[in-house]
Amino acid sequence: MNTATYTVEGMTCGHCVSSVKEEVGEVDGVGAVEVDLATGLLTVSGDGPLNDDKIVAAVEAAGYHVAGRP
Amino acid sequence: MNTATYTVEGMTCGHCVSSVKEEVGEVDGVGAVEVDLATGLLTVSGDGPLNDDKIVAAVEAAGYHVAGRP
Repeated sequence: MNTATYTVEGMTCGHCVSSVKEEVGEVDGVGAVEVDLATGLLTVSGDGPLNDDKIVAAVEAAGYHVAGRP
Repeated sequence: MNTATYTVEGMTCGHCVSSVKEEVGEVDGVGAVEVDLATGLLTVSGDGPLNDDKIVAAVEAAGYHVAGRP
């Protein structure tokens, strides 16, 4: 199991969390997505390799911004 | 044309605005719904009578709260 974490900026409510989960969940190799609204922490896991660029792009596609990797 | 305005609390983003517009737009007699996110101002209009209780209930159903009538 591979896991990657990101700090996401701009999420303000549960709808935002759902949008990020939906977009990131569609990235190849992503099995599970967890988002903590209060901290902006996005945790992605999967059995195979995780494509960092695609995950960051998915967050942007949802309308938010990856500020960094905690 | 009848118009009614409400101050809605709890909306934080465009998703919230869409949720309120969708729920309030389904109330009988409501023709148009405008929401200003910055001020929380909800403006409802229609050709016939507007049911205040149903509009307030629709806002609550969307997950937000009517704080009053400005």
